Amino acid sequence: MPSYRAPVKDWLFILHDLLHVEALRHLPGFAELTPDLTVAVIEAAAKFHEEVLHPINQSADAEGARFTDGQVRTPAGYREAWAAYRAAKWHCLSLAESLGGGGLPPVMSVPVSEMRAATGHSFSMYSSFCTPAASMLAALAPDWIRTHVVPRLSAGDWTATMGMTEPQAGTDLRQITTRATPQADGTWRINGRKIFISGGDHDLTDNIIHIVLAKVPDDDGRLPAGLSSVNVFLVSKRMIDPSTGALGERNGVYARSIEHKMGIEGSATCALDFEDAVAWRIAGAEGRGTAANMAPMFHLMNYARVGTAVSGIGYAEIARQNAADYARERRSGRAASASRASTDSADPIIAHADVRRLLLESAAFAEGARAGALRAALLQSIAQLEPEEAKREAAADMLEILTPVMKAFFTDRGFDAAVACQQVFGGHGYIKDYGVEQFVRNVRVAQIYEGANGIQAADLVHRKLFAHGGRPWRNFAGAIAGFIDRHRDDAALDRYTVPLDEALRRLDRVVASLRTTDPAQGGYAEVASYDVLTAVGIVYLGWIWAEVVAVVTGGAECQFLDENMRARKLVLADVWMQRQLPLVDSLCRRIESGNSGLLSIPAELI
Amino acid sequence: MPSYRAPVKDWLFILHDLLHVEALRHLPGFAELTPDLTVAVIEAAAKFHEEVLHPINQSADAEGARFTDGQVRTPAGYREAWAAYRAAKWHCLSLAESLGGGGLPPVMSVPVSEMRAATGHSFSMYSSFCTPAASMLAALAPDWIRTHVVPRLSAGDWTATMGMTEPQAGTDLRQITTRATPQADGTWRINGRKIFISGGDHDLTDNIIHIVLAKVPDDDGRLPAGLSSVNVFLVSKRMIDPSTGALGERNGVYARSIEHKMGIEGSATCALDFEDAVAWRIAGAEGRGTAANMAPMFHLMNYARVGTAVSGIGYAEIARQNAADYARERRSGRAASASRASTDSADPIIAHADVRRLLLESAAFAEGARAGALRAALLQSIAQLEPEEAKREAAADMLEILTPVMKAFFTDRGFDAAVACQQVFGGHGYIKDYGVEQFVRNVRVAQIYEGANGIQAADLVHRKLFAHGGRPWRNFAGAIAGFIDRHRDDAALDRYTVPLDEALRRLDRVVASLRTTDPAQGGYAEVASYDVLTAVGIVYLGWIWAEVVAVVTGGAECQFLDENMRARKLVLADVWMQRQLPLVDSLCRRIESGNSGLLSIPAELI
Repeated sequence: MPSYRAPVKDWLFILHDLLHVEALRHLPGFAELTPDLTVAVIEAAAKFHEEVLHPINQSADAEGARFTDGQVRTPAGYREAWAAYRAAKWHCLSLAESLGGGGLPPVMSVPVSEMRAATGHSFSMYSSFCTPAASMLAALAPDWIRTHVVPRLSAGDWTATMGMTEPQAGTDLRQITTRATPQADGTWRINGRKIFISGGDHDLTDNIIHIVLAKVPDDDGRLPAGLSSVNVFLVSKRMIDPSTGALGERNGVYARSIEHKMGIEGSATCALDFEDAVAWRIAGAEGRGTAANMAPMFHLMNYARVGTAVSGIGYAEIARQNAADYARERRSGRAASASRASTDSADPIIAHADVRRLLLESAAFAEGARAGALRAALLQSIAQLEPEEAKREAAADMLEILTPVMKAFFTDRGFDAAVACQQVFGGHGYIKDYGVEQFVRNVRVAQIYEGANGIQAADLVHRKLFAHGGRPWRNFAGAIAGFIDRHRDDAALDRYTVPLDEALRRLDRVVASLRTTDPAQGGYAEVASYDVLTAVGIVYLGWIWAEVVAVVTGGAECQFLDENMRARKLVLADVWMQRQLPLVDSLCRRIESGNSGLLSIPAELI
Repeated sequence: MPSYRAPVKDWLFILHDLLHVEALRHLPGFAELTPDLTVAVIEAAAKFHEEVLHPINQSADAEGARFTDGQVRTPAGYREAWAAYRAAKWHCLSLAESLGGGGLPPVMSVPVSEMRAATGHSFSMYSSFCTPAASMLAALAPDWIRTHVVPRLSAGDWTATMGMTEPQAGTDLRQITTRATPQADGTWRINGRKIFISGGDHDLTDNIIHIVLAKVPDDDGRLPAGLSSVNVFLVSKRMIDPSTGALGERNGVYARSIEHKMGIEGSATCALDFEDAVAWRIAGAEGRGTAANMAPMFHLMNYARVGTAVSGIGYAEIARQNAADYARERRSGRAASASRASTDSADPIIAHADVRRLLLESAAFAEGARAGALRAALLQSIAQLEPEEAKREAAADMLEILTPVMKAFFTDRGFDAAVACQQVFGGHGYIKDYGVEQFVRNVRVAQIYEGANGIQAADLVHRKLFAHGGRPWRNFAGAIAGFIDRHRDDAALDRYTVPLDEALRRLDRVVASLRTTDPAQGGYAEVASYDVLTAVGIVYLGWIWAEVVAVVTGGAECQFLDENMRARKLVLADVWMQRQLPLVDSLCRRIESGNSGLLSIPAELI
């Protein structure tokens, strides 16, 4: 069975020494984020995930969720774990206290999300929409739902799902055919089939709240083709009495099957049939029209993207920990490098340079991305709470870029890290005993769900980079350039800031070319999108690593950095700079090639 | 269920139009390789793999091999498939006719290996050592084994295994503890445990020939620490009467368990206990010493590496075929590119540039690597059969480089292609229905077994590049430079030869730096090895694609190229040149960085 040690000190170093969370104490909720509190919360979460979720993680996926007699049964141990989990409020740590949540800033949920992915990905799929649904419903739903549904979600009495995909409609929501028919009493009736609904049915709670997309027919009873008729509805598995909140009989929503998947087999991925299910419409906050209709769903989707991004870090971390432990024990061959220590006939394989490459590239990603994710969570708070408008705007702009980049780049590199660490085990990594192949199969889904990574790249290039006249990219690139400028006279940082500067300028020219290319050649930007996203991700973590070096060598005292961590951070910074930043130029050359043949070849010849 | 159409025309184009196999008709066995024969053989193999193996491939892995009552049972359909398979001699197409094989040059086995991986990877694991074991035993074993064992392997009456790995000894064979004790009658007794033995037990044949590594104890009965006492032995599952070849009672070799794996679950990966098993020593051809003792095993290992390399192509091909079919059917969103065709509300996703990227990168790898693998197989024949010594030597040198490069690079890119094509399916690629996730799980093992890919990189850098005073690399780089020189005045080829020339020169400088770096800094070359191998692979296929363009635009008539294939080949060449060759510079920059921190960090900090 794999082991797991939550990287508690790294989170504390990032929060306090690198990101100086204390500097945000003027924002609501931040004053209490002293080391006393952050240490207590993160250590408690670590204990829980290490001791409660991790021990059942392998067996739960091996057993899998089962579907019998129209009912999903979760794997052994999930019911007990859920009772403890919701009691500790790990599912709603950052939900407002007024709504029954933990009331901590979102940055405190990021470590929990990472641990949850590493130790209980399948388990987490049942509860992952509790917080976003509660928060969305509290903002947009009718009073009785705020009164009787939101507290049940934050208490974990009930869970929530997000129902978008249908057999013929995935990313393209215009194609959904689930129908919402208005009733005289103000409720609606939903008919249709949704698929890929995580936790669409289970035995952990008495009730499940489904947040569902459906189309409202026009006056002739036809479903309009486009997106304008798509609205968001709440469907409760069991009927709720709006005046008392009491649960009544079964509503017309039924699990029909669960999928057999490559991984996360403890999570029940359901096909749900809605058969005259009673529903309530959840309207967007700002009037009518598509954007308003869909606003509740976008609220949920953005939450999901950030959580998914962080799962890539969790897998890189646990895979690297186990592979490093194995590599320190397993002996094979003689290392050519100076790092070999023993006079035994065989060195531990961690002495082999190529094994170190696999482990340290994984670690450089995981620790850089961890800091990158916490920074993004702080930006989220700044974008919402900062009194100064210019700061709010700059933070929001950064997030426009970072949300799709983190979702795709962090899950891509999380997958790569899991594969690399599996490789360290040789044949022992391919068999199930060590549990590392489970990480590879599980993390793979993170590149696919919550908006496939190619969709994130399209979102970045078509909607984010050049929104508001190009302001998000200017703010993003400007923040990095500002850091480089501030350290221009610091010769000790040159080996980090010089290549970072070079990569940023290179990327900036390519981004500009995307904007100026003739839109009639629309494919130029589209085919470039994935390389652009990857290059932005590499540069973002390059910035993070340069900042880490500036902090650990800067002379200011660090509260949570011992000498070993310091030495390690400097090596990981080198690994990122020496091995990742050079890729930016290649990605830019790919983009500049124009990829003409790829765009013009007829579909039947592909 | 996935579909499969063997790429018959591509093999014929490569054999006859690109590689001009007719030019080798002076070599034994090549005169008959006319299009009449190659078409007949490849079409027959295609029909067999499409119609017999492919239909049971998904169900067999789902059912898996089972181990009950000390006996392995193969999945439903394997026994019937094996009867047809061996009758057609697909397992020994290139074994000499005098040994009962098909007698065709090795180049004709490459298409069969590719189809076998794509349609029956698990199935193939039971028979994959029949040909190499028969060929090795015919060359090195005592007469009675040549008479009574070799024909049973070529007939498929029996199968063979390769027994190297032990629980504590994988790559490092010095650590094996299986003991071979000499007997007065000239036989040996083997005691020990071997693991990860593919097809170590099964119900397809009456007998299994295990080729096993074991140590011969010294005069004090101790097992020497090093490799010098390791020898190769033949252990038959059932005793064989040396004078008649008749099978007798059970020998002392027992399957104890089979592994539960990430993939290829129809293949039984056995732990085998040898308990006083009667064995015969197989001596190397050239006297005594480690090299001679191990020669029989190296013979088997080289076979296995080439077959493994080709499996990466097979997975890229079948994954791309299925993903392209899906992408032509599935409709979602509107494409920005000029390639969108319809006025419907949603385009087939193959119109999206980023989907094309995934598909065409996979195809550019598969078709380039296919030509690269057939070329290597021809080099194999030239190295053995060519009358002119200089040509033999040059071919052997190329193979020194290509064997580890193809094993690692082709399986890496085969895995990447399977992952990319899975991504095209979105969520439907993560569930088991379409079968594409099976490709990802299965092909992953090819990066791990038959020498993990990191070992291939070490082999390339430490043993191959600079053997014979650096001749292999000079011959490899010289062959590509020669091609570029011959086409220097061909302006139409500039867009291929100029970047190829640039990449080759860049890589050549880095390879030279590996040689001249102070050996005391041994880690420099070791940590560079994987990037070097990857860069060599990219350049090799860059050369292949430039040659393809030279052929399809060169004016000479092509027998097996229609206009559609021609258009497609030109696009795939562009994809490789525009998207892969730029990576060489980045890989070189990584190497030149020296990776100093990675080498010096203490093991306990990783």
